[in-house]
Amino acid sequence: MLRQAAMTRHFTTDLDVSAEEQSAILQLAAAMKAAPGEHRERLRGATLGMIFQKSSTRTRVSFETGIGQLGGRGIFLSARDMQLGRGEPIRDTGAVLSRYVDLLMIRTYAHRDVQALAESSRVPVINGLDDVYHPCQVLADLLTIRERKGALQGVQLVYVGDGNNMAHSLMLGGGLAGLHVRIVSPREFAPNATVVLEAQDIAKTRGSRIELTDSIDGVEGADVVVTDTWASMGQEEEHQSRLRAFASYQVDEAMMARARPDAIFMHCLPAHRGEEVSEAVIDGPASVIYDEAENRLHAQKALMAWAIENS
Amino acid sequence: MLRQAAMTRHFTTDLDVSAEEQSAILQLAAAMKAAPGEHRERLRGATLGMIFQKSSTRTRVSFETGIGQLGGRGIFLSARDMQLGRGEPIRDTGAVLSRYVDLLMIRTYAHRDVQALAESSRVPVINGLDDVYHPCQVLADLLTIRERKGALQGVQLVYVGDGNNMAHSLMLGGGLAGLHVRIVSPREFAPNATVVLEAQDIAKTRGSRIELTDSIDGVEGADVVVTDTWASMGQEEEHQSRLRAFASYQVDEAMMARARPDAIFMHCLPAHRGEEVSEAVIDGPASVIYDEAENRLHAQKALMAWAIENS
Amino acid sequence: MLRQAAMTRHFTTDLDVSAEEQSAILQLAAAMKAAPGEHRERLRGATLGMIFQKSSTRTRVSFETGIGQLGGRGIFLSARDMQLGRGEPIRDTGAVLSRYVDLLMIRTYAHRDVQALAESSRVPVINGLDDVYHPCQVLADLLTIRERKGALQGVQLVYVGDGNNMAHSLMLGGGLAGLHVRIVSPREFAPNATVVLEAQDIAKTRGSRIELTDSIDGVEGADVVVTDTWASMGQEEEHQSRLRAFASYQVDEAMMARARPDAIFMHCLPAHRGEEVSEAVIDGPASVIYDEAENRLHAQKALMAWAIENS
Repeated sequence: MLRQAAMTRHFTTDLDVSAEEQSAILQLAAAMKAAPGEHRERLRGATLGMIFQKSSTRTRVSFETGIGQLGGRGIFLSARDMQLGRGEPIRDTGAVLSRYVDLLMIRTYAHRDVQALAESSRVPVINGLDDVYHPCQVLADLLTIRERKGALQGVQLVYVGDGNNMAHSLMLGGGLAGLHVRIVSPREFAPNATVVLEAQDIAKTRGSRIELTDSIDGVEGADVVVTDTWASMGQEEEHQSRLRAFASYQVDEAMMARARPDAIFMHCLPAHRGEEVSEAVIDGPASVIYDEAENRLHAQKALMAWAIENS
Repeated sequence: MLRQAAMTRHFTTDLDVSAEEQSAILQLAAAMKAAPGEHRERLRGATLGMIFQKSSTRTRVSFETGIGQLGGRGIFLSARDMQLGRGEPIRDTGAVLSRYVDLLMIRTYAHRDVQALAESSRVPVINGLDDVYHPCQVLADLLTIRERKGALQGVQLVYVGDGNNMAHSLMLGGGLAGLHVRIVSPREFAPNATVVLEAQDIAKTRGSRIELTDSIDGVEGADVVVTDTWASMGQEEEHQSRLRAFASYQVDEAMMARARPDAIFMHCLPAHRGEEVSEAVIDGPASVIYDEAENRLHAQKALMAWAIENS
Repeated sequence: MLRQAAMTRHFTTDLDVSAEEQSAILQLAAAMKAAPGEHRERLRGATLGMIFQKSSTRTRVSFETGIGQLGGRGIFLSARDMQLGRGEPIRDTGAVLSRYVDLLMIRTYAHRDVQALAESSRVPVINGLDDVYHPCQVLADLLTIRERKGALQGVQLVYVGDGNNMAHSLMLGGGLAGLHVRIVSPREFAPNATVVLEAQDIAKTRGSRIELTDSIDGVEGADVVVTDTWASMGQEEEHQSRLRAFASYQVDEAMMARARPDAIFMHCLPAHRGEEVSEAVIDGPASVIYDEAENRLHAQKALMAWAIENS
């Protein structure tokens, strides 16, 4: 691996890539999905360090399988097996780990940890989920929408629910891809205003719209309906009050009926049937959740290849 | 890997294979043991997901080394790193994981989890141990007996102790292989009656006998004496009462003297010297416990190849 | 892998190799660092079992990446996933594991566990750190000194601080390499006397000196200044009393000024800036800590190849 390249390309937020780069990564992901055998030696011998401050089966298995399918190997580092930021400054951890591995992935509670790791690392750092962003999931979502709708530009995506990291990354990554993105959330659970403004700036350059509303009328015209759990990482204790606040925002058959007839339903999982989505919707014909989950694998394989080959 | 095959071949109990298939798997295991280098690319690029609700060094290292020796890789998923059946329905876990990996192994406290995983998985599911069955261990045991006795048909195996998952799988898998299997256990720790009847049905088709007794006279005529810990998974709190109930069932030199002169002693480990077996027996000349442990590796390699190649 | 070799070569202490063998391992490490691609199939198919009674990011990632870069794979076994010495005798664990894997690495609190594992193992056992020795770190340190000073023979190393496993292995491994090693520590935290005598015996054969002092005047003439945390494994509760005892032993700029002008500073990490070392020193121009950390990878790759190829 070349480590002294002109610039180390991290993927800490959706906007660490240009629209052209995002499109190239999605193109590569589709090619890898169509013909995985052709890329089996593409990252031969590469090591991916995977840092998890919170465990995640999906993120872990998709990354570890993905690097393996490219000829490399993943090392799973759980919060229990390392003390990120405790005992040892992150700069030492990043400096040392990046002497061993070719690529780092981090799933953490705090975006500032992702930034600190990227600042101290010689090798690319990929954000596998933090409290503000979930950019790998959005790459998988864009790949899924491309498969189903044939294009991204001008497709209307409506996200219903908590204005969380998924909402943020859908606005940013979706806006970058030319999607129209509408967030439907209770007023007190609206997305972060700074992220919204940033997304609107990007969307403007791509001819797409970013909109917010607290009315479920916002689902009208949707080509894609997305939701996510109402209690994100670390918020489980507020569960009851959140259930009340979000009660009228469940994606059920009535809500799906307000979207376009050929609208698809997406969810990054794990799902809570009977809370943010009804069983009839998530297990019904509009749901593409398992394809979406599978696309984590292909999107991340392309992202890893892109990061290493361009650093 | 072909994933849309006519039928996905799981190995959730000893009877998920026919007698001919069991024999072919053992034949392949012996061939892989004799010439491991010839199979080094056999499952090239394959990923094995290994789900452990209870940790197990032996099961884990034998599976993870085994898939590696076939050109693939294993991903270790502990109960701590995933919440099987909690938070997320097993059907979602199975559906998603089987989009990433080529094969799943699960070690769990409840056989219904193994079934639920197999029902939702597109790829083969192997039972690495549950509360009712331990079919991989029995494949290793059969391989060991074949090596020592030259055949399986008509060999008399006597299992002494708790009528647990080992007793069950020895009756089922042993019966399928044509072994005569006798279970010697205190009356209140007899095996599950449904499993016994099922084993007797299978044994009838194979010309072998399945017998139960609470008398240690049952050891007479044994070619193979097997025991297992008296306190299985989750039963440690009953330890003292179990010690009393099993007191006269220890496999010691006196008991071995009642078996055939060339009888071998087997134990799936971990062993409690001074409880179910005396030190003189387990560390003595009749003991084949380390060969038996090693044969987990070879038997499981053959099983994994069979499952993937026939699904 | 050949497993029935004349002798299984373990690396449980610095003195398990001869001076010639140590030199050959360092030579191979330098060659592997210079041209990693030439050794990419050197241990093809080999499995390294890695037993951690205490987690360690650095040790783990360097070993797991290292075996991978040689064409093999590592299996990470944490104390949580296995019960070394509890429930099952270490002799069973060692006997069984060494039927599966080609090489074992253990990081433990007790040197007797390393010995017990080596006694029961058919395959080489490498000491990844215990309460008395840290021989892999010293191989990395020697490689670093060789790179910076051009040689080892006659170089003056001064270790300042706790007379712990690092002090022990620096005396033993350093003495074996022909380094002059001086330990500067408070009287009550002097190294183990048996180890000191053993190191002096070895040093005598190599023309080098092993010296002890409690005076920081001992830093004078140092080509290499090394320190380590004041509270080693399991001693965190004595933290406050140790801070007082070691107060005048911090490696700061004043202390470094007493060493040779071109002296380098080393630390095996994790470091506690403001305790055993000042920020100005560890992050200053004399510090080679990240090269030292990287050299764990190269030294251990060479060690693993040596152990397997000579067993």
